[in-house]
Amino acid sequence: MPNFQVTPWEVSGRVDYDKLVEQFGTQKISPELAARLEKLAGESHVMLRRKIFFSHRDLDLVLEDYEIGKGFFLYTGRAPSLGMHIGHLVPFMFTSWLQRRFGVNVYIEITDDEKFMRNQRYTQEQVERWSRENILDILAVGFDPDRTFVFQDTEYIGNMYPLATRVAKHLTFSAVKDTFGLTASSNIGIVFYPALQIVPTMFERKRCLIPAGIDQDPYWRLQRDMAEGLGFLKAAQIHSKFLPSLTGPEGKMSSSKPESAIYLQDDEYTVRKKIMKYAFSGGQPTVDLQRKLGGNPDVDVAFQWLYYFFEPDDQRIKQLEEDYRAGRMLSGEMKQILVEKLVEFLKEHSQKRRAAEQEVDRFKREGKLASRMWETIHR
Amino acid sequence: MPNFQVTPWEVSGRVDYDKLVEQFGTQKISPELAARLEKLAGESHVMLRRKIFFSHRDLDLVLEDYEIGKGFFLYTGRAPSLGMHIGHLVPFMFTSWLQRRFGVNVYIEITDDEKFMRNQRYTQEQVERWSRENILDILAVGFDPDRTFVFQDTEYIGNMYPLATRVAKHLTFSAVKDTFGLTASSNIGIVFYPALQIVPTMFERKRCLIPAGIDQDPYWRLQRDMAEGLGFLKAAQIHSKFLPSLTGPEGKMSSSKPESAIYLQDDEYTVRKKIMKYAFSGGQPTVDLQRKLGGNPDVDVAFQWLYYFFEPDDQRIKQLEEDYRAGRMLSGEMKQILVEKLVEFLKEHSQKRRAAEQEVDRFKREGKLASRMWETIHR
Repeated sequence: MPNFQVTPWEVSGRVDYDKLVEQFGTQKISPELAARLEKLAGESHVMLRRKIFFSHRDLDLVLEDYEIGKGFFLYTGRAPSLGMHIGHLVPFMFTSWLQRRFGVNVYIEITDDEKFMRNQRYTQEQVERWSRENILDILAVGFDPDRTFVFQDTEYIGNMYPLATRVAKHLTFSAVKDTFGLTASSNIGIVFYPALQIVPTMFERKRCLIPAGIDQDPYWRLQRDMAEGLGFLKAAQIHSKFLPSLTGPEGKMSSSKPESAIYLQDDEYTVRKKIMKYAFSGGQPTVDLQRKLGGNPDVDVAFQWLYYFFEPDDQRIKQLEEDYRAGRMLSGEMKQILVEKLVEFLKEHSQKRRAAEQEVDRFKREGKLASRMWETIHR
Repeated sequence: MPNFQVTPWEVSGRVDYDKLVEQFGTQKISPELAARLEKLAGESHVMLRRKIFFSHRDLDLVLEDYEIGKGFFLYTGRAPSLGMHIGHLVPFMFTSWLQRRFGVNVYIEITDDEKFMRNQRYTQEQVERWSRENILDILAVGFDPDRTFVFQDTEYIGNMYPLATRVAKHLTFSAVKDTFGLTASSNIGIVFYPALQIVPTMFERKRCLIPAGIDQDPYWRLQRDMAEGLGFLKAAQIHSKFLPSLTGPEGKMSSSKPESAIYLQDDEYTVRKKIMKYAFSGGQPTVDLQRKLGGNPDVDVAFQWLYYFFEPDDQRIKQLEEDYRAGRMLSGEMKQILVEKLVEFLKEHSQKRRAAEQEVDRFKREGKLASRMWETIHR
């Protein structure tokens, strides 16, 4: 057993991504495949260059379908929660980029049903509020309102259920239990739910590409076992790593540990305080030692966040790494750079989020794709 | 273990209804309770007099609610099948009578999802056709188009799902497995389905009365365990016996054994042939012996059908019973009487069924109750 665990509901320990690829049976994204994707996209993406998106299934087939004109579509989603943090944006930012570069449809599933049924304490009112709030954060990332459909399971199920019954008919309790670690005490809604996460992979007859955290992979394994039997294509995936927790390289940021994450609604004061106080440092205990021995950027969370997310300039990030390692740069200085980037990012995000308030109806109901989806019963 | 079995999916052996009441923990309908119901209804009903409806839960509370002006509502349903037989009409006929006499709302659930997921061989197209056909047979029984809502699960789930997630959250796999005899190889759709059969009991804040075969009782036991916790009332039931199979007193009529039942679409020739050839007789092997020893109406299916369904005249049924027991009447004569009643009934049914074709939209979409239901999201 590895000393880390990755399931759709829990990530713990220090994740060894090479081992995970082996364990899940996915493929690493080779330099050739990344280059092919970037060539077709017409530009490079920092999350590919820095291997935040590092693993895939059938991405080569997706690109092939694109090259020969068959096209493809994108699907991702979110279990709504009280607050979204920085790490939650990763798949949406990459999905947004793919949509812009390839001009394809995007489906975003808000799994309000799953969230509500997962925890006896959650009320429908809470989850509904979280859904509304999270949708604004997602739309702030930037999607095409005529090529994107955002839907909450509890609202769109009428259109999905006939296909969901076909999917469900091919999933036994036993298979779902083994895949997701359910037990006989799991409630029957949670048992049924995987059918609803699989259905959107069959919204079009084209190949579906899913940018998502690798923790969601078990759903897609089930999908790939049945898709062709139901007359659809196996869903392709492109898997991301988890942005490290603020408090250290183990686990991922968690909504239940506020000090582990920066939330999209955190204000400047909070951001500064959290980074300065909690961000796990790869530096030495004293300034003198840091100057003499240098710090370790590989475990320094401030550097990691800059690397993964906030400093897309390759020259600049290389410089930061070298300076830190050489002791020319202090831990506090690295944190200061991150704080400035973060504050700037959140300010911009909050503006886009406010603008998105006027756009929700287009994405959910009235846009070209959305209105067509409401007229479609999936079977 | 009794030498009969009654579950929502199978009835086998000769059912001992007294034992069943004990086993299921329901109440027999006392003469006083039946009289109270008939007094409030303003007339007697043959299915009460003859104890086809013989068992209940909380029927007394329903009548109390009615007396003090709180009212109640009716809920019943059907898993669509290739052909409906005579026995399938029993709960609908009684429900129709209750609606007429008490002026209450009726909800009729067509469980097309469950039917489709129950059997790997069924296709969605088949089940959809059966649903359409069965709805006509049900409407032919006669309901108030402004107080009745007929809905297929796959069509109405968008309005039911939020409440279904609340119900599902209170049902573990283990509870559902034990109640319905599921296994780890059951598909996850069938596992979830009980939530959808329970939801309509919560369509109104009034008490729900369910006229149905006693085989459906396990669903209502689950409902009664959780209803009050969710802010609703425990559903009341009035349970019917099964019309005996044509071929003998064991089991019930089955769609998979055509000789065991008279279907609503059987023509006169088929009806006559089936009754004459298959109807289990309580008579003696020869005419002479019948004249001498008399027949046994208690096991004679022709007499039983007349008693349960087709001869509401108490004087007349008593006469038939006495004549048969005394040997004044032959088995063939009893069958002949049943054939005439059946042919007449089916002729009338088929006329009403044709008329119902124009009414389907009112019951499903446009009637007063139906249109209000489509505007309601149940939570």
